[in-house]
Amino acid sequence: MSDIKVAVLGAAGRMGTQACAAVEAADGLELVASLDNGDTISSETLAGADVAVDFTVPAVTEANVHAVLDAGVHAVVGTTGWDDDSRARVAAHLAELSPRGTGGTGSLGVLIAPNFGLSAVLAMTFAAKAARYFESAEVIELHHPNKVDAPSGTARHTAAAIAVARAEAGLGPSPDATETGWEARGADVDGVRVHAVRLRGLVAHEEILFGNEGEQLIIRQDSFDRSSFMPGVLLAIRSVVSRPGLTVGLEHVLDLS
Amino acid sequence: MSDIKVAVLGAAGRMGTQACAAVEAADGLELVASLDNGDTISSETLAGADVAVDFTVPAVTEANVHAVLDAGVHAVVGTTGWDDDSRARVAAHLAELSPRGTGGTGSLGVLIAPNFGLSAVLAMTFAAKAARYFESAEVIELHHPNKVDAPSGTARHTAAAIAVARAEAGLGPSPDATETGWEARGADVDGVRVHAVRLRGLVAHEEILFGNEGEQLIIRQDSFDRSSFMPGVLLAIRSVVSRPGLTVGLEHVLDLS
Amino acid sequence: MSDIKVAVLGAAGRMGTQACAAVEAADGLELVASLDNGDTISSETLAGADVAVDFTVPAVTEANVHAVLDAGVHAVVGTTGWDDDSRARVAAHLAELSPRGTGGTGSLGVLIAPNFGLSAVLAMTFAAKAARYFESAEVIELHHPNKVDAPSGTARHTAAAIAVARAEAGLGPSPDATETGWEARGADVDGVRVHAVRLRGLVAHEEILFGNEGEQLIIRQDSFDRSSFMPGVLLAIRSVVSRPGLTVGLEHVLDLS
Amino acid sequence: MSDIKVAVLGAAGRMGTQACAAVEAADGLELVASLDNGDTISSETLAGADVAVDFTVPAVTEANVHAVLDAGVHAVVGTTGWDDDSRARVAAHLAELSPRGTGGTGSLGVLIAPNFGLSAVLAMTFAAKAARYFESAEVIELHHPNKVDAPSGTARHTAAAIAVARAEAGLGPSPDATETGWEARGADVDGVRVHAVRLRGLVAHEEILFGNEGEQLIIRQDSFDRSSFMPGVLLAIRSVVSRPGLTVGLEHVLDLS
Repeated sequence: MSDIKVAVLGAAGRMGTQACAAVEAADGLELVASLDNGDTISSETLAGADVAVDFTVPAVTEANVHAVLDAGVHAVVGTTGWDDDSRARVAAHLAELSPRGTGGTGSLGVLIAPNFGLSAVLAMTFAAKAARYFESAEVIELHHPNKVDAPSGTARHTAAAIAVARAEAGLGPSPDATETGWEARGADVDGVRVHAVRLRGLVAHEEILFGNEGEQLIIRQDSFDRSSFMPGVLLAIRSVVSRPGLTVGLEHVLDLS
Repeated sequence: MSDIKVAVLGAAGRMGTQACAAVEAADGLELVASLDNGDTISSETLAGADVAVDFTVPAVTEANVHAVLDAGVHAVVGTTGWDDDSRARVAAHLAELSPRGTGGTGSLGVLIAPNFGLSAVLAMTFAAKAARYFESAEVIELHHPNKVDAPSGTARHTAAAIAVARAEAGLGPSPDATETGWEARGADVDGVRVHAVRLRGLVAHEEILFGNEGEQLIIRQDSFDRSSFMPGVLLAIRSVVSRPGLTVGLEHVLDLS
Repeated sequence: MSDIKVAVLGAAGRMGTQACAAVEAADGLELVASLDNGDTISSETLAGADVAVDFTVPAVTEANVHAVLDAGVHAVVGTTGWDDDSRARVAAHLAELSPRGTGGTGSLGVLIAPNFGLSAVLAMTFAAKAARYFESAEVIELHHPNKVDAPSGTARHTAAAIAVARAEAGLGPSPDATETGWEARGADVDGVRVHAVRLRGLVAHEEILFGNEGEQLIIRQDSFDRSSFMPGVLLAIRSVVSRPGLTVGLEHVLDLS
Repeated sequence: MSDIKVAVLGAAGRMGTQACAAVEAADGLELVASLDNGDTISSETLAGADVAVDFTVPAVTEANVHAVLDAGVHAVVGTTGWDDDSRARVAAHLAELSPRGTGGTGSLGVLIAPNFGLSAVLAMTFAAKAARYFESAEVIELHHPNKVDAPSGTARHTAAAIAVARAEAGLGPSPDATETGWEARGADVDGVRVHAVRLRGLVAHEEILFGNEGEQLIIRQDSFDRSSFMPGVLLAIRSVVSRPGLTVGLEHVLDLS
């Protein structure tokens, strides 16, 4: 199998720099283009890439993806700022490129991943699967004290997925006899309590607790460093070439069967 | 749907007593027979049961299952002491009862579960799924100090499943530069290091650690009390009636898709 | 050294029953009286006890202690419901019994312990000592879901002690850039964030987190069972006989030098 | 109070570089000299320093300290490789400089710290204090997989201190019924079991577990980054000027009363 040729957009940024290095060090991948601010995205500048990885900024990421698709190149997107509308426009663009019935591995794919951390994605995925089997569930996220929002997007996402799984399994709310002191009981995300800890020395961590009579299950993930996202980026690059259409979330390319 | 009628074998033992109480308290289940030491197992004594739950002793559990099958009753088995040979004999017995082509929900099922703890079974299952995505993996099990064997069967089983998943994913051994002090590095189970802690106050706990550059995933489960096994027993009873043939392991009746 | 003779008040209650059993099983202690509801407290009924242990109810505990002192017996108190006034009356009673200058091991002692759990008392004590050395500090308490108040008294007490230590060391508030989502940031106890988790299967647990740039210290304690209070009760009994006057808090009889 | 003037020896090394930066950024400290390989240590090159901080190499650290003392300067030592003999020679040197009866804050001090991590030092100190109150104690250390020795020096030191405290309190060995599988039970350090985990993504971590019937106390420390040592280095510099004689261990300058 020949190498997958990769272009990195936003190659001079923090994530882009690491992505370039990770692609260069990876078996079976070849870095063929590093674009940044001001560079045009076209067949020429993408230099024969099979996949373009976008680590730019919210203001330009959607336009980049459309340009990448016009150049006949798959896209992996790590930039934030996507919403239902922008995702729908990409899905429509992909549909034009892949007429009904002609799909297959030859068609283009776009993978938008809000989180490339394997431990974070696995923690969320396992939490959603476990949720239906426990009477109680709560989420604690822990971050550095410079974070301005609480709870974290990952924790909200996790709690929402737990809530869906509980509802599907016919579980009511987690038992809670609290009468006084609700301010200590965290935020309510779809009925699941989420606590945010801010501590100097930490980076990004999440702990999901499940309880039944006499037992507890804890799923915890720690992101100590941005380098931890690179295995997920490489996995996304390798997966998108055989995954036509729009995929949102790295969990869909993990083999969890 | 009418209630599932349940017989408990070993009803006077520690697990049997709890199982009787759990069945009586459960929606959709009815306890119709409680047998113990000296009671014959037959259509009469099983009293119309759909499922018989065996919490007896290794010396009699296999004979019990064959007798239960001869009475046309499904079996859930929580007794230890099964090996490949005894499982094969039960599978053969089931095959006689369900001729090729006649299977279906009408056929009898046997579910042998080495562990009914949902948190323990989920921890093992998730660990096996996560294993292929991490460079390093180790297992720590923690138990009360009266336990005579180390590491625990659950920890061995977990480590073995991690080893299989790593091999399938083409991962070599976890990195380890240790030159001196190997006695601190735990037992080697199929290439995965397993550590056993013995501490007064604990019951049965397992922690599985996965690491990549810059990130960590921890799956931990705590069994504080034997009562924690009952949700798994009830799930097994409800599942076995529509699961013909031999099933080994509660994980196969969990919905983890 | 002769045995310490012990009377238990509230001997039929949950804690009293365990205290009686623990005293009977302990080296160097002898159970000489078990009183409960309706029994008079006097030299006769205390039957030569050196120490009376009170596990009754808030409504009678103070009167019990005065009666115990009038009988010339030391007291260990595990009943809740004490406030500054009731403690002051006991201190005054003790002062009458121990005229200035005549103190010593012959004088009577009273030890009121809000918490007999060694792990809980040590966790609080260590947290107070560590607090001055860290930029960030937060407290997470985890309890069974039937608890009606949040955060727990132990967590409040811990946070308050951390706040005092930080103030003494000239530390300002823990860094926190939170702009949105304060409801996830827990209760504010004297400037220290306290989070309360409620989970089926848990009993009473506390985790205190300290952070500096590049490092974290976690002190965690788990109370799985009421039996865990008995080592603290025995320590209190053995200590109070040589500790004249009023002592509030088991930490004062621990040797932490 | 005037600033404390500081010289750093080994200023070009990893720790020395950070120490120079930390001193320059600290209130009340002034960096007056940065010496490295090949620089002579004398009154002239120390340039009026009150304290010299040695982060050199085992081969030269003792000679450096004697030269620093000859120049009339206090010393803080973070270099490894000290043993009883080298420490005794420094103590003797200090004694010559501080004739009996003339001690006081005017005398020179040397502080040798095997570990400047506040969380690590506090964890060890608290563990030693807690040890006498628990029936069971074990140590787990977790490090990056490039570490060649196991268990870590910190874990050995912690276990040894626990063993001393247990012996002083008259405690026998932790209960342990293990009959088979001793290789999973970790290294035996003075009768205390120590487990070493090696995991990609980790740096240096220690967890000390104590158990009694029904309760557990866990003291955990995480060193994520070498930057975590700087608060301890600054504390050592500020303390050594008023601490004549030889001090071994940062714990002696912590205020833990």
